[in-house]
Amino acid sequence: MNLPRTITLTSDFGLKDGYVGIMKGVILGIAPRSVLVDITHEIGPQDVVAAAYLLASAQPYFGEDTIHLAVVDPGVGTDRRPVAIRVGNTTFVGPDNGLLMPSLIGLRAVEPESGALAGTTTAVELREEAYRLTPVSDTFHGRDIFAPAAGHIAAGLGLEELGPRLETLQSLAVPEPSVLGRTVTGTIVTIDRFGNAISNVRAHDVPAEPVISVGPATIHGLAHSYQEAETVALVGSAGFLEIGVRNGNAAATLGIKQGDRIVLRGGR
Amino acid sequence: MNLPRTITLTSDFGLKDGYVGIMKGVILGIAPRSVLVDITHEIGPQDVVAAAYLLASAQPYFGEDTIHLAVVDPGVGTDRRPVAIRVGNTTFVGPDNGLLMPSLIGLRAVEPESGALAGTTTAVELREEAYRLTPVSDTFHGRDIFAPAAGHIAAGLGLEELGPRLETLQSLAVPEPSVLGRTVTGTIVTIDRFGNAISNVRAHDVPAEPVISVGPATIHGLAHSYQEAETVALVGSAGFLEIGVRNGNAAATLGIKQGDRIVLRGGR
Amino acid sequence: MNLPRTITLTSDFGLKDGYVGIMKGVILGIAPRSVLVDITHEIGPQDVVAAAYLLASAQPYFGEDTIHLAVVDPGVGTDRRPVAIRVGNTTFVGPDNGLLMPSLIGLRAVEPESGALAGTTTAVELREEAYRLTPVSDTFHGRDIFAPAAGHIAAGLGLEELGPRLETLQSLAVPEPSVLGRTVTGTIVTIDRFGNAISNVRAHDVPAEPVISVGPATIHGLAHSYQEAETVALVGSAGFLEIGVRNGNAAATLGIKQGDRIVLRGGR
Repeated sequence: MNLPRTITLTSDFGLKDGYVGIMKGVILGIAPRSVLVDITHEIGPQDVVAAAYLLASAQPYFGEDTIHLAVVDPGVGTDRRPVAIRVGNTTFVGPDNGLLMPSLIGLRAVEPESGALAGTTTAVELREEAYRLTPVSDTFHGRDIFAPAAGHIAAGLGLEELGPRLETLQSLAVPEPSVLGRTVTGTIVTIDRFGNAISNVRAHDVPAEPVISVGPATIHGLAHSYQEAETVALVGSAGFLEIGVRNGNAAATLGIKQGDRIVLRGGR
Repeated sequence: MNLPRTITLTSDFGLKDGYVGIMKGVILGIAPRSVLVDITHEIGPQDVVAAAYLLASAQPYFGEDTIHLAVVDPGVGTDRRPVAIRVGNTTFVGPDNGLLMPSLIGLRAVEPESGALAGTTTAVELREEAYRLTPVSDTFHGRDIFAPAAGHIAAGLGLEELGPRLETLQSLAVPEPSVLGRTVTGTIVTIDRFGNAISNVRAHDVPAEPVISVGPATIHGLAHSYQEAETVALVGSAGFLEIGVRNGNAAATLGIKQGDRIVLRGGR
Repeated sequence: MNLPRTITLTSDFGLKDGYVGIMKGVILGIAPRSVLVDITHEIGPQDVVAAAYLLASAQPYFGEDTIHLAVVDPGVGTDRRPVAIRVGNTTFVGPDNGLLMPSLIGLRAVEPESGALAGTTTAVELREEAYRLTPVSDTFHGRDIFAPAAGHIAAGLGLEELGPRLETLQSLAVPEPSVLGRTVTGTIVTIDRFGNAISNVRAHDVPAEPVISVGPATIHGLAHSYQEAETVALVGSAGFLEIGVRNGNAAATLGIKQGDRIVLRGGR
């Protein structure tokens, strides 16, 4: 007997209305031995960017043969494509709206600029009716398209059975950080529940001895803990640069919000 | 080896105080291979009606041999009966206070008016002490009666071992919709977190070309998406008629609340 | 094949930011068959005392070979020790800051006063690098130290492989109740979501015919349900004395808060 496959779930469905339970019911009906793990369902409604970076933060801590199912899907019912993407033994399932891109970029599975698949990455559009719940609703593709796809993949179905191959994926609305000489320009992508402002600047893009500008704040150098100074910049535990205030709420104190630009100028 | 059985959990216990975890501990102590899936634990305190319809919305998406454990139980410690009900291979466990009725009606397992069991449905009162945690507390039958029953059923115990057979179940406080000629009268049973007002009118009871009255609103015809008009009526993804406001909160905007009457008059 | 092991998780991480999902990813990467059960992640930030008693309330309802992983850890990054403790077949993993003490005291696995291990209890400091994620972050030992330890124990690793033996554990900031003749003095350790004030006085320490003083209230005798009087003291379903107000919020009504002293004077 093979090991059961882990399927993670990330959405903006909340835990009040039963949508997450329904998706799990669909998955377990197809792949009863799956191990289901919630990453979060408390993403702000339709906040694709926050969900994208949260998933990219969590994904590295799951085993290689994990299936990551993510549904934050403002375009549900339009012609945005539902997709499944395989990178090595890891599979992602969700809408093609940029939600999966930071994870794929972290795995070097896609070209950030063009959205073209890189290396041995394969992607398909989830178009095959046999692997959907029919009729597909206009409003809940999590249940009708994405959960069944994740279930069938967990049960052993080949990706190519689910629909036609894709060569290019949609980019996220927020661009990857730009690097110009020693200057890196990124974006605040989410505010965590403590008010820390998380950016999309990865550890390896932080220049040496950076001077960091975000909102009204200018911060010299990186800290290693939130206790080092009143206002600190540090590489958070998931590998992205973040801004915090000692024993306080950085977003509220500094007036930083999602979408704000953050600039790092290297000192040498 | 048999497949593990899925057990769903629905309650008003919230996630703060550990009650749900305790029920799961009890179940896994009896049936360690069970797959436990939360539908929701964020039901308003003692809101049997909302829980009943939420469970009825989710139940069809689970496999046939699922056990549905639901505990919203204002009568805990009184003489309301704890029950288990089997419909085909699906089992329900919970208090006999109407909580399970919409699900059972959806499965045609019970007569809506009389509460009499229909077809091959079997029900028992959970009275057998050997399958309870003793002493049974006055306040937490979820732990002491319902979770052990679900666990023992998952572990293979026959329903008839759990207590004496029942022929009739308690109806829900809110009646099923009435149909009089072309006029259907139902009830708003819950408000979801987006403010959509969900009724207990099932898709197959909606008359053709309906004129729908609820609170101060009159709505002509059914929509297929929330974007079609300012105020819309549509059959939600779970098969019940609901009222929404485009990009807004219908309950707040229209002053609709749980328990309000909704009337559909067929146009032909 | 052995049964899968259940691992419970208790923390103050909340469900919004993905930390709990990350810990589960780490565990399942090491012990893919583990059954993961959340007790709660809605502990108030850094509220070690509330978490300690919540875990002590839930632990008795889990099977003997359960692993309880608890992370409420204000001292993360300081020299407080990360520990694993085995009592019979039950294992606890967490910071050595008193968080595990009420559970251990309930199991008579430790001397309440001195923190010395009792009976056959064994404890180790989680110091072995091979069983950590490296480099260990300053801020997220749940992911880097505690989750890996729980995973390796679930996968069969002996406790002694994880680090050096300990003989004594840190006590909780709030002392166990004192018993002086017929007078028992305890502490309010948490307020539940209904406003009931839960103390650390265990059922077997309640004197006969007690007169109970807490905040402005004096209560004569124990009730069996919250309906018996306006203000009641009863032994809650988890075995600790608690104070409630009929159909109301005891903490708000009586001005009781966490940390308040509660005194029981025996009447005979």
